[in-house]
Amino acid sequence: MSVTAFEHPFLCGLVGDEETANLLSAKAEINAMIAFEAALAKAEAGAGLMSEAIAEQISSTCVGFQPVMADLQKATGRDGVVVADLVRQLREAVSTTGSEEAARHVHFGATSQDVIDTALMMRLKEVWSLFRTRIDEIESGMSRLEAQFGTRRLMGHTRMQAAIPIAVSDRVRTWREPLARHRAKMESFSESGFVVQFGGAAGTLDKLGDKAAEIRRALALELFLSEAPQWQNQRDRLNEVASILALITGTLGKLGQDVALLAEMGSEIQLAGGGGSSAMAHKQNPVAAEVLVSLARFNAVQLSGMQHAMIHEQERSGAAWTLEWLILPPMVLATGAALRLGLELVGNIKSLGKD
Amino acid sequence: MSVTAFEHPFLCGLVGDEETANLLSAKAEINAMIAFEAALAKAEAGAGLMSEAIAEQISSTCVGFQPVMADLQKATGRDGVVVADLVRQLREAVSTTGSEEAARHVHFGATSQDVIDTALMMRLKEVWSLFRTRIDEIESGMSRLEAQFGTRRLMGHTRMQAAIPIAVSDRVRTWREPLARHRAKMESFSESGFVVQFGGAAGTLDKLGDKAAEIRRALALELFLSEAPQWQNQRDRLNEVASILALITGTLGKLGQDVALLAEMGSEIQLAGGGGSSAMAHKQNPVAAEVLVSLARFNAVQLSGMQHAMIHEQERSGAAWTLEWLILPPMVLATGAALRLGLELVGNIKSLGKD
Amino acid sequence: MSVTAFEHPFLCGLVGDEETANLLSAKAEINAMIAFEAALAKAEAGAGLMSEAIAEQISSTCVGFQPVMADLQKATGRDGVVVADLVRQLREAVSTTGSEEAARHVHFGATSQDVIDTALMMRLKEVWSLFRTRIDEIESGMSRLEAQFGTRRLMGHTRMQAAIPIAVSDRVRTWREPLARHRAKMESFSESGFVVQFGGAAGTLDKLGDKAAEIRRALALELFLSEAPQWQNQRDRLNEVASILALITGTLGKLGQDVALLAEMGSEIQLAGGGGSSAMAHKQNPVAAEVLVSLARFNAVQLSGMQHAMIHEQERSGAAWTLEWLILPPMVLATGAALRLGLELVGNIKSLGKD
Amino acid sequence: MSVTAFEHPFLCGLVGDEETANLLSAKAEINAMIAFEAALAKAEAGAGLMSEAIAEQISSTCVGFQPVMADLQKATGRDGVVVADLVRQLREAVSTTGSEEAARHVHFGATSQDVIDTALMMRLKEVWSLFRTRIDEIESGMSRLEAQFGTRRLMGHTRMQAAIPIAVSDRVRTWREPLARHRAKMESFSESGFVVQFGGAAGTLDKLGDKAAEIRRALALELFLSEAPQWQNQRDRLNEVASILALITGTLGKLGQDVALLAEMGSEIQLAGGGGSSAMAHKQNPVAAEVLVSLARFNAVQLSGMQHAMIHEQERSGAAWTLEWLILPPMVLATGAALRLGLELVGNIKSLGKD
Repeated sequence: MSVTAFEHPFLCGLVGDEETANLLSAKAEINAMIAFEAALAKAEAGAGLMSEAIAEQISSTCVGFQPVMADLQKATGRDGVVVADLVRQLREAVSTTGSEEAARHVHFGATSQDVIDTALMMRLKEVWSLFRTRIDEIESGMSRLEAQFGTRRLMGHTRMQAAIPIAVSDRVRTWREPLARHRAKMESFSESGFVVQFGGAAGTLDKLGDKAAEIRRALALELFLSEAPQWQNQRDRLNEVASILALITGTLGKLGQDVALLAEMGSEIQLAGGGGSSAMAHKQNPVAAEVLVSLARFNAVQLSGMQHAMIHEQERSGAAWTLEWLILPPMVLATGAALRLGLELVGNIKSLGKD
Repeated sequence: MSVTAFEHPFLCGLVGDEETANLLSAKAEINAMIAFEAALAKAEAGAGLMSEAIAEQISSTCVGFQPVMADLQKATGRDGVVVADLVRQLREAVSTTGSEEAARHVHFGATSQDVIDTALMMRLKEVWSLFRTRIDEIESGMSRLEAQFGTRRLMGHTRMQAAIPIAVSDRVRTWREPLARHRAKMESFSESGFVVQFGGAAGTLDKLGDKAAEIRRALALELFLSEAPQWQNQRDRLNEVASILALITGTLGKLGQDVALLAEMGSEIQLAGGGGSSAMAHKQNPVAAEVLVSLARFNAVQLSGMQHAMIHEQERSGAAWTLEWLILPPMVLATGAALRLGLELVGNIKSLGKD
Repeated sequence: MSVTAFEHPFLCGLVGDEETANLLSAKAEINAMIAFEAALAKAEAGAGLMSEAIAEQISSTCVGFQPVMADLQKATGRDGVVVADLVRQLREAVSTTGSEEAARHVHFGATSQDVIDTALMMRLKEVWSLFRTRIDEIESGMSRLEAQFGTRRLMGHTRMQAAIPIAVSDRVRTWREPLARHRAKMESFSESGFVVQFGGAAGTLDKLGDKAAEIRRALALELFLSEAPQWQNQRDRLNEVASILALITGTLGKLGQDVALLAEMGSEIQLAGGGGSSAMAHKQNPVAAEVLVSLARFNAVQLSGMQHAMIHEQERSGAAWTLEWLILPPMVLATGAALRLGLELVGNIKSLGKD
Repeated sequence: MSVTAFEHPFLCGLVGDEETANLLSAKAEINAMIAFEAALAKAEAGAGLMSEAIAEQISSTCVGFQPVMADLQKATGRDGVVVADLVRQLREAVSTTGSEEAARHVHFGATSQDVIDTALMMRLKEVWSLFRTRIDEIESGMSRLEAQFGTRRLMGHTRMQAAIPIAVSDRVRTWREPLARHRAKMESFSESGFVVQFGGAAGTLDKLGDKAAEIRRALALELFLSEAPQWQNQRDRLNEVASILALITGTLGKLGQDVALLAEMGSEIQLAGGGGSSAMAHKQNPVAAEVLVSLARFNAVQLSGMQHAMIHEQERSGAAWTLEWLILPPMVLATGAALRLGLELVGNIKSLGKD
């Protein structure tokens, strides 16, 4: 049970999206962090920094490893970051199922930020995949609207005044075209944006000597991420992600605002699935349309926070980094919810325009 | 288990605050909403709109009433608001334990917004009480610092450069004085800001005739709230609340930034309880200080969203209202966490300045 | 000629407000800063730190003193702040019209922030006076609307759907009541919020010894400001100002949004003074209503920046302080414009509701 | 003389940038709008909608045409947009120097938004060119720092604590690498982002019949812009511009924060050109570094406003569009200033790290 609306016991029915939430869950995060540690051992064994047998002991222990959450929570409160205790717990497990030597090799040369930022990228990559599918579905739904009602007339409105009639397809096009551009931006980001973070204590991989580049490459390959020099204090890629999320919700917010206005004026749209009122039985509220506006404004607000987090001082800023943790996951949840509601709303448009 | 950091399985160790979260939980919200319905029945019986017996049937059913959460969730997704289904469930319960007639009288003359906004005010009032206590404690902690180290010297810094020495008490005073002003603002708000919302379908209490004012007064009294005309589309009071929350975290953010800089320069502060590093055992990170900065920036970002929600069109804006639900609870959680961490940080300052 | 819209050669016709801009002009700022220096000399003479004759030489030179702007500009680029060069120029003038000794006494014990923050408070106090008058006028205009059309019916709308009819007075009341609360907040702020800033190099008035408090008191009195300990790194009062500005524009933004929706639906309002279109001669655009929404969102965005500026590290933060200079004046201009347009819009409502 | 800091009589010395301001001036805007009208006439003549002679009369009158600013200002206040009056003035001029018939053909089939949005794109394209040059210069300056001091040691700091030594080149790399990515994003945007806007009254080019596409293509070609369907209510491209501006200032803000911290700790950097203090002659304040932080936070705040403006209802939103006019030009100015200061700051680093 959560206080925040996206995961709130009953508000989640309105603004939640379970599929998105699962991708961002602590469970998914821990799995990704453990996958990092396993992949690191393999990569370092490949570079001769440990034996294959040691790496195998580590990676086999990682399979299904479940840390004690209460300890992680307590340690995060103390250290500001979960990794030190997660590594401690993993080392204990490795020393039990493997060997003391293998335990000592866990997390070798890495630092907290490598684990957390890489695990974030792994999950954002999955979010991307989910969201691209949903955008496709919304675009298809809009194409259906266009096929069905496109040649009908709709009163064009400029500056909150009736202007001249347009075709329904003119309006639908202004909802759909930006989505195609957002999809293109997502694809472009996918090509090189989901990068491994690997820098060690201060970004210099100081413990890995001349094997550093080789290990980073192998690590990226193992985790299906792109390779890049350490970026722990270069947060522009995450801001690009946040910006794309806000573009998506912004476009869906315009859709919502337009539909809400159509619903208010009443004669040019028929909507199924409107919400009921506790006081007025006759009403059919355009709930999904309104909430799309809310989610667009929510992300518009949050994006500012991600930008502030670019001022990431020195080699690692606890303040700026923690700010990202507060801001980015809700932005992803809001975008997931908006895509879900956008699809629902498009499907609920039973008639648009007039013959 | 929650994705958002404040209630995240392990991040909550860092930025969570259980006491605050409890005040904002769905359980607390439902309790407050049910208390509204009970108080409404009493107030309406007092004005002769129903018999005392009917009101008694309603209010006694309210005691310990537990709605089916899954139904609330589903209905919220459909209606955009939980109240219609909550009232439906309560009516069912009243018709079982009381009578059909009593069931029909539940929620009489009220609307969703009356229930939700009033229930919000009830819980914010408790939040206020908690936060004022914590501010007192932080001020006391600062006074202790002043008593202990106040006459020592500290290098004053202006524009990121050493300026001239000041006394430790000069610095502590700049942390403490704004808190006293924030406390005064909270007190001033308490006097008349926690108001009942009661307007009916469109804010006019159209079903209550000439009893409307009397019932609103009685309702406010019953719920220990101030009385005011309906304010469903006048959101300035909630913005005042949000602004005070952001002032508190802003002041604590300055404390955090100052302590982090002292810790970085190293010679004028001793801090207990710093966090450990997964890569560098020698470090003592000023985690709480950093996180105070993060929380201050978080609320600085969110406050903007509450301001946008003032543009609450017509009698009730689904878009603006939902935006508040997304923004305000996390602001409260962030403030609760900042107060907890601020108290911890002040307590962890083991030495300040130099003799 | 300015790039920014508030003072742009032609956009100022839309979003400018000359009266407000004059209160914030560089000329007004310089006058206030010079008044500070004159008052400081008097106050210090009163405390025996210089002779009355010296103070007289300073203050008489201050009358009508006009610095060389090009030098101020160049120096501000170098020093980050205008005061050092302003004082240099003033000293030169005093040494010419008065004496070398008087020149040395100019600005004694003060620092840049004393001058700038105090001069800001002096001008904000005048802004307050202007804005309160305008709020009064808007409230009067709304009362006239209520007197004229209050008993007519207006369709109440909730969640972008027709709900039940309300009275015109119900709607007008939701526009007017928050303004009364904002006015009360302005009055409350006026009582003690416009404070002198006087702290010297690092906030400790180190050069004034036991005369410090006496001089600060006299300085405040001389400048018609309230007295308070130095607050150079306690920015909550300025955030309170910014918050009140955003509340005002938020309330006017709701007015604008409501009027724009009435204009779009068309049958319940008649507006004079709507704007023409370059493409459609038949249109009467509700321009002022729309721009009130823009200005409300503008200030909602900016308020966030003022909150970030609370994280004002150490004794004086160049970064946080400069951020205020970028953010606060446009907020004041936007509020001035919104009050101008709000008054205009209320006056242009020729009919509201239906009999 | 302007109230806003970027063009303020003395603050412009600190945060102004004349070259950028010129590109955004009203004069430049009017020139671009007039160029649009000339190009439109040529394009329409090419498509046979008017004779070449008529087009020639129009375009030759456009050369050096200077509208009466006072009229533009007044009309903008009334119409919410400058174009109707600008076209009126231009028609008067054409009817004098050309013919009544030519006057009637001015602006044929176009609307205000076509002129303003296209003129904005034309100027942003020039801004892009200026900013790319400056980024190149900053990158060169950073390369020089790396060549000169790269192998020296610098204490790496994580979470505001000394961590382990890194090379100066490690730090400089974190300043420079994001700039290269921003440059790539600018280049990618240049390929297709600077598009003509041409839609007519409601986006459908209703008056141009089957010539619409041909004319739009010719218009784009004439103005050296890319071609695209009307995008008047699809504001994602402008948000992409704003996002890139905020990325640039964000990266420079990190540079500023790092330099300010180096300056505060003092032993690893030597900076020329620091600012003086009015109270403490011994200080050398890292003014440019601080202001880079201010400008980064300024743009981080503003970006949120541009996102809100994506909720651009119906065919044309006066509210959302005006919000862009308030927000985007200051973002461009802030970025221009940050690039100027970033270059200055890099040039002023006289020593970095230790042997």
